[in-house]
Amino acid sequence: RSVRIRMVFSNFINGRYCRNSNSAITAQAAQREPGDEVNMKNLGAKRWAIAEGYIPAYSHGEAPQLTSHETVCILNAGDTAAEVTITIFYTDREPGGPYRLKIPARRTQHVSFNNLDDPEPIPKETDFASVIEANVPIVVQHTRLDSRQAETALLSTVAYAAGD
Amino acid sequence: RSVRIRMVFSNFINGRYCRNSNSAITAQAAQREPGDEVNMKNLGAKRWAIAEGYIPAYSHGEAPQLTSHETVCILNAGDTAAEVTITIFYTDREPGGPYRLKIPARRTQHVSFNNLDDPEPIPKETDFASVIEANVPIVVQHTRLDSRQAETALLSTVAYAAGD
Amino acid sequence: RSVRIRMVFSNFINGRYCRNSNSAITAQAAQREPGDEVNMKNLGAKRWAIAEGYIPAYSHGEAPQLTSHETVCILNAGDTAAEVTITIFYTDREPGGPYRLKIPARRTQHVSFNNLDDPEPIPKETDFASVIEANVPIVVQHTRLDSRQAETALLSTVAYAAGD
Amino acid sequence: RSVRIRMVFSNFINGRYCRNSNSAITAQAAQREPGDEVNMKNLGAKRWAIAEGYIPAYSHGEAPQLTSHETVCILNAGDTAAEVTITIFYTDREPGGPYRLKIPARRTQHVSFNNLDDPEPIPKETDFASVIEANVPIVVQHTRLDSRQAETALLSTVAYAAGD
Repeated sequence: RSVRIRMVFSNFINGRYCRNSNSAITAQAAQREPGDEVNMKNLGAKRWAIAEGYIPAYSHGEAPQLTSHETVCILNAGDTAAEVTITIFYTDREPGGPYRLKIPARRTQHVSFNNLDDPEPIPKETDFASVIEANVPIVVQHTRLDSRQAETALLSTVAYAAGD
Repeated sequence: RSVRIRMVFSNFINGRYCRNSNSAITAQAAQREPGDEVNMKNLGAKRWAIAEGYIPAYSHGEAPQLTSHETVCILNAGDTAAEVTITIFYTDREPGGPYRLKIPARRTQHVSFNNLDDPEPIPKETDFASVIEANVPIVVQHTRLDSRQAETALLSTVAYAAGD
Repeated sequence: RSVRIRMVFSNFINGRYCRNSNSAITAQAAQREPGDEVNMKNLGAKRWAIAEGYIPAYSHGEAPQLTSHETVCILNAGDTAAEVTITIFYTDREPGGPYRLKIPARRTQHVSFNNLDDPEPIPKETDFASVIEANVPIVVQHTRLDSRQAETALLSTVAYAAGD
Repeated sequence: RSVRIRMVFSNFINGRYCRNSNSAITAQAAQREPGDEVNMKNLGAKRWAIAEGYIPAYSHGEAPQLTSHETVCILNAGDTAAEVTITIFYTDREPGGPYRLKIPARRTQHVSFNNLDDPEPIPKETDFASVIEANVPIVVQHTRLDSRQAETALLSTVAYAAGD
């Protein structure tokens, strides 16, 4: 079995991420046995939720790295571009959005809620939550850097995978 | 397929969150194929648990934004108001609560444990845990802002989805 | 349905946590329909893992609240005492433990790894991981307070529920 | 049942982690009933994802403990060495890696992304995401210590278990 795994790993290097050898992929793919391939297909879920959201109103420290921000990190490990929509839920009004993103195949984007402005910016110092949906499986993580005081505070959690 | 998805997105904008065009919803809904709609039904779980809980006794910094707090963020992305109960577990006494909340459809509430007072306030500087239950699926995340020292510390984690 | 839910809520208050009216429980239980009860049974999982673990060697700030600590928060929401064992995994030696805890029914314990000493203390400034097992479902969350510098840093995450 | 559990616990101590008494294991194993054993097999998942990744460019504080770092904590609780590969996803280029690690049976490794350098180092101040794959089940947690300012900030979350 270790032989097969090594074979798959070399396939992983030489085939999947190789930009100049499609015939090599085909040759190696033929050596795989069903259920034994390493690939990034179907990695994640199509619907995610982050119940916490809050953009601090001000910052200390060097911009832009230490500017207060609320971030949704999205990984599209698959071979198809992801059409992503983010819907923002509030405490006392109807939801905002959808905000639309396109994440290319095999790419990650760390999207700052601060920068979403179409159809409207998200107000600061306001509680919100978000639902992230995509047409292909993605992985979503939520991170905040709060530099309202002199020192930075950080939080992060994988979002809730709400299923396909 | 991209056509259908685009259709669903426009439905999402024009239909779901539109307060003045029910006939448009019906027209578009008729164009959907089964299993292909984007909707927020059944997003989450009905029972959640947070094993960590602790309300710091004091704070530094501007109130109320930088007051130490322990928060449970709840998202009700569905179309039905959520009847939520929170039960508090302690180390050395029987559980407290239930604390009852109603979260309207398509709304989020970031509830501070500091503010729960019916049937009784939660004591400060005391270890606790919580179970959050609802009659419809919700999403729950736990966040603490600790400003006991001059600088803020933050933690957050999606709660444990304990199933339906 | 809302009637039934209300009934269950009152049952929840009057029955489950009521220490003086077992006959009331029985009466109300008879009104429930199968699958519709709110109860805390089977809340959680029997096996959890925390891949991160590290006890800082020193602290700043008021003891014991602001002493650096690495904590495993355990919730036993059920009606049976939980027999819990913690096994500690290291980078370069065989695992340590098991450390044994008993968590009474309907209680939480926030256990500091700093305080585990039977069969041996966990060394400071040493990477470790932990597996938490119980004979009944529990919920586990991991929290660290790091006060090695003048200001506190916090991290927390629900542990990995490794199944039953 | 408590008798059986105690038996299993003693098995746990005397058998599993005992390096000198295979016959004792066999004897005790014979006493177990199916489905009732405590063991670490199949603890975790074979594929994990961390959508957030960022190595700060500089640090304050005592090295190496307080150097800014981005860490992936991996637990291999099983009895077989884990062959682990990490693939790094970026915003604007093809993925990097795979980075290969071997984690012995019953060991944890807290791997700093800062130190991965074969086939190439991960650039600092650059958004990335990671996928961690293994030939046996492992548990993965993501932690960052950010000491760019005078005080430390911490984040941690269990990674996303992307299935087997």
